[in-house]
Amino acid sequence: MGEPKSYKWLFDYLSPDEGHIHGINTIIYSRQTRFQQMEIMDTKSYGRCLVLDGKMQSSEADEFIYHEALVHPAMLTHPNPKRIFIVGGGEGATLREVLRYKSVEYVLMVDIDEEVVESCKKYLPEWHQGSFEDPRTELKYLDARKYLEETEDQYDIIIIDISEPVEEGPAYLLYTKEFYSMVHRRLTRDGIISLQAGTTSATNLLNFSSVHQTLKTAFPVVRPYQAAIPSFGLPWGFTLASKVIDPQGISPEEIEERALERVKGELRYYNGAIHKGQFLFPKHITKRLESEERVIEDNYPLFTYH
Amino acid sequence: MGEPKSYKWLFDYLSPDEGHIHGINTIIYSRQTRFQQMEIMDTKSYGRCLVLDGKMQSSEADEFIYHEALVHPAMLTHPNPKRIFIVGGGEGATLREVLRYKSVEYVLMVDIDEEVVESCKKYLPEWHQGSFEDPRTELKYLDARKYLEETEDQYDIIIIDISEPVEEGPAYLLYTKEFYSMVHRRLTRDGIISLQAGTTSATNLLNFSSVHQTLKTAFPVVRPYQAAIPSFGLPWGFTLASKVIDPQGISPEEIEERALERVKGELRYYNGAIHKGQFLFPKHITKRLESEERVIEDNYPLFTYH
Amino acid sequence: MGEPKSYKWLFDYLSPDEGHIHGINTIIYSRQTRFQQMEIMDTKSYGRCLVLDGKMQSSEADEFIYHEALVHPAMLTHPNPKRIFIVGGGEGATLREVLRYKSVEYVLMVDIDEEVVESCKKYLPEWHQGSFEDPRTELKYLDARKYLEETEDQYDIIIIDISEPVEEGPAYLLYTKEFYSMVHRRLTRDGIISLQAGTTSATNLLNFSSVHQTLKTAFPVVRPYQAAIPSFGLPWGFTLASKVIDPQGISPEEIEERALERVKGELRYYNGAIHKGQFLFPKHITKRLESEERVIEDNYPLFTYH
Amino acid sequence: MGEPKSYKWLFDYLSPDEGHIHGINTIIYSRQTRFQQMEIMDTKSYGRCLVLDGKMQSSEADEFIYHEALVHPAMLTHPNPKRIFIVGGGEGATLREVLRYKSVEYVLMVDIDEEVVESCKKYLPEWHQGSFEDPRTELKYLDARKYLEETEDQYDIIIIDISEPVEEGPAYLLYTKEFYSMVHRRLTRDGIISLQAGTTSATNLLNFSSVHQTLKTAFPVVRPYQAAIPSFGLPWGFTLASKVIDPQGISPEEIEERALERVKGELRYYNGAIHKGQFLFPKHITKRLESEERVIEDNYPLFTYH
Repeated sequence: MGEPKSYKWLFDYLSPDEGHIHGINTIIYSRQTRFQQMEIMDTKSYGRCLVLDGKMQSSEADEFIYHEALVHPAMLTHPNPKRIFIVGGGEGATLREVLRYKSVEYVLMVDIDEEVVESCKKYLPEWHQGSFEDPRTELKYLDARKYLEETEDQYDIIIIDISEPVEEGPAYLLYTKEFYSMVHRRLTRDGIISLQAGTTSATNLLNFSSVHQTLKTAFPVVRPYQAAIPSFGLPWGFTLASKVIDPQGISPEEIEERALERVKGELRYYNGAIHKGQFLFPKHITKRLESEERVIEDNYPLFTYH
Repeated sequence: MGEPKSYKWLFDYLSPDEGHIHGINTIIYSRQTRFQQMEIMDTKSYGRCLVLDGKMQSSEADEFIYHEALVHPAMLTHPNPKRIFIVGGGEGATLREVLRYKSVEYVLMVDIDEEVVESCKKYLPEWHQGSFEDPRTELKYLDARKYLEETEDQYDIIIIDISEPVEEGPAYLLYTKEFYSMVHRRLTRDGIISLQAGTTSATNLLNFSSVHQTLKTAFPVVRPYQAAIPSFGLPWGFTLASKVIDPQGISPEEIEERALERVKGELRYYNGAIHKGQFLFPKHITKRLESEERVIEDNYPLFTYH
Repeated sequence: MGEPKSYKWLFDYLSPDEGHIHGINTIIYSRQTRFQQMEIMDTKSYGRCLVLDGKMQSSEADEFIYHEALVHPAMLTHPNPKRIFIVGGGEGATLREVLRYKSVEYVLMVDIDEEVVESCKKYLPEWHQGSFEDPRTELKYLDARKYLEETEDQYDIIIIDISEPVEEGPAYLLYTKEFYSMVHRRLTRDGIISLQAGTTSATNLLNFSSVHQTLKTAFPVVRPYQAAIPSFGLPWGFTLASKVIDPQGISPEEIEERALERVKGELRYYNGAIHKGQFLFPKHITKRLESEERVIEDNYPLFTYH
Repeated sequence: MGEPKSYKWLFDYLSPDEGHIHGINTIIYSRQTRFQQMEIMDTKSYGRCLVLDGKMQSSEADEFIYHEALVHPAMLTHPNPKRIFIVGGGEGATLREVLRYKSVEYVLMVDIDEEVVESCKKYLPEWHQGSFEDPRTELKYLDARKYLEETEDQYDIIIIDISEPVEEGPAYLLYTKEFYSMVHRRLTRDGIISLQAGTTSATNLLNFSSVHQTLKTAFPVVRPYQAAIPSFGLPWGFTLASKVIDPQGISPEEIEERALERVKGELRYYNGAIHKGQFLFPKHITKRLESEERVIEDNYPLFTYH
């Protein structure tokens, strides 16, 4: 048997009875913000990490997988994304990936937790890489739902980069039928929403399949997909929903071409193969997605493990 | 934050600094065999599990993913698999999946650890489902490499269902260039080998890419693939190597048809979509597979975390 | 640094932020009774253990410390203990220690949880050593407080061998002023009560000092004492309260003589030195005991960590 | 059952199969020195802590117990301690306790690890309380054994404040017959040595009893004693050895008087009662101390858990 070398551990509980543990080198920053407990840690296997309320958000070693998987399917599917709205995304890495597109003219990032964003600016420079200073970026510290409800502005792509809700609070209102319906109205004609949608573990599919079912109430094209993000400890799901365009209609070759043409620098994770493969699910997940009936509503929320 | 409910935990260390933990209901069986420490546990999230030397081998909740991913790519790729050789596979579930094929006439399963097999027979009936009693099954308790070296028999498919080696011992000789070359000679004209090949985690690709490189010394067609097996705590890799036939040349539709025709009962995990998607890798893994130079040899073994 | 060898662990949480962990060999028995979750485990450091609701009750390696520390101070202090009442004590080891006294004529043990007692009978024979079959033993499965309230019988010694209460339930009513006052009435003229009273850890003295203060409302002589029970993970407290006799008035030599005379077989833990030393507290604990004002009442209960 | 609130834990392994775990608030300082891995952590239950190679050295909440138990038995036993030699003691708290004595004229503290001492100076001001600046203090960063071998100076009291050795290295030579014999020569006529001597847990008495046996080869008076230091997770042992004076010959009242007279400020842990009680052992430990035959020698060292 292998024997551990670490004696300082982060326990990332994925459920009351399961967890992924990370040996800690040191804790660089620790703070209770108005909204959550945050830590920036240096872990032995994944390097620097952002941890919110004990849950791994992204790590130096594999944040490129998470952020590329969240951003590029939508960005490469859209014909010409200019105005982007990011909900959450405190590390600035979703912003970073969005700004790589030459077509992008304006990105509005709305995160409720200023303290998290400010700490990420300081301690996670490899994540944001100066994106907050890009002249195309606007950053607001607000409740994103409230903001979207009150604005008349429209966006080509809206990216939801937040943790799935575990309890009452502003976050859960960003996962409901009413919210998605409102997002639909804030999207331009070819508009797309993409979001992280929780684990796709066989034992815990409710969040993933309910988000799918809920998005279907608001969008004609709903495409769930997966990525393997090792530091998360379980296979992970995303969903892309679209007013018109189907990402699965775009060939791997076309994706490779678009990436070359539209994106500054080289992608590390995303490629044509993954654009094809990520939408292909095994039978047990397909069945669950097809049979799910749960629709998440403002008055009928879904909370994951708490 | 979520709070754990369990107070009895299995720590499955994936490296000296990372692990996946499982709340234990109870330990059904525990024994030091001649070769390893084995446990059959009832865990809270994944039900009954086989654990060898502290490492999760397969669980009630998701063994169907592991065993279908190990068996069906090779079996559905081969035109008419009749004689199958299984190395390891103590739970009897690899055997179970093989025996579902109407074309199969003979399966020889060689596992070095009789005590593990006998315990699985008794405590994991949902795994083997009587497969050890199938008249087409022959079971030997031997060193599989030695057996293959001494026999002249040939097989259509050889499936390696063992843990990757963590230290000196008979297991490591089942992952070398010399072994694969010998396997090649024991395979019939359309012969295929498939095996589990360790994690595909971005931080720990050495085993997966070295197996790939090593198989390429013996086989013209080598196709690595992935599956998400939640109880393993990290994304997992497999490799199929073949004398002639390329699994990627078979369409999803053809796979679905073959499954209907050839397999008794319904598959739970494997389908045409996965047959397509599982071979499609993101850029960082493709790069690593392409650039790997390490070849595992009898005199130059590779040990994973120990 | 030391590196652990175990991969199966019991986490005995002593508070929400502190715990003692035990490597598990195997779990011999596991059951949800009407009142609690119970396990009998074989641990690597302490051998067989009884665990209730995740908390170590007693272990093969050091139960002799706990049970001798609970029983002999009272039994050796009393001039001639004949009738003993045990509350709880499911393992039968408190009973075993009591029955070693030649003077004892009758022991009534009242435990609310028949399933725990029956399992201990079966799996912990080294604990009870046949004590349940002793003709002087009577065993009832009842709420001990209710029983004492309804009986007119009197006892020379009453021993409370239960976990301190962590939540509402029958247990908390065995730690209140009203209960102790009633116990006083059920004791004969030289009567003594002894009980385990929680940790004496500097950071967590509330339970120990409140029990002390509460007993003082009912008894003129209250003598807290300590024992080091390694498997508990923290220093542990007991309290002896008495109608008349002060244990500290008995010399170590007298204790050694009484033990020789009155007790069958040899004690393993208790001796004259400990009878002297266990009542001697350091300054910070003495201060706390003296300044504590909290009295536990039926309507003002005290719950430890839950 | 209690449920933990922490998700960052220090695992202090007391053996390969047992540990005490501490919820971490944050890690204030972390560094690999020339000799060891050191951390200064803020833990939830014990406040700020010094951790060396994963083992708790002392904590804000209960360092007063450890340091008073290490220093005062020797200091209050000696008739007039003027020159003190401290081996180790990096936190400066042993020094602090020694300097409280009005009789003390000179303290030489020799610690091999300058980086630990410098970090403690900075991050643990409540420990040293400026003691390093006291004009009576001299601090050297040397191998203490080598220093003592080469000096001709003598001391009234020598205090060994280091971890018991877990492997080859300079530390193990501070626990041998040869070292103690040399210490004897460096002590003045009424000289006393005191040291921490490892756990007194029933399952792990070898270190404690061997130190006892080894000291007996060099000193006529050897008095082992215990203290309950909650953050250590197990009961803890110390030993005082003396050329002439027996600490057990001094009454609690005399100790109280001496403390009042000789010590600046008030003690928090040590008092007359503890001076009496700490030397009184239960039967199983007394037996072990009496029957131990192991003598630790330079060429026959004893290593605790590693």
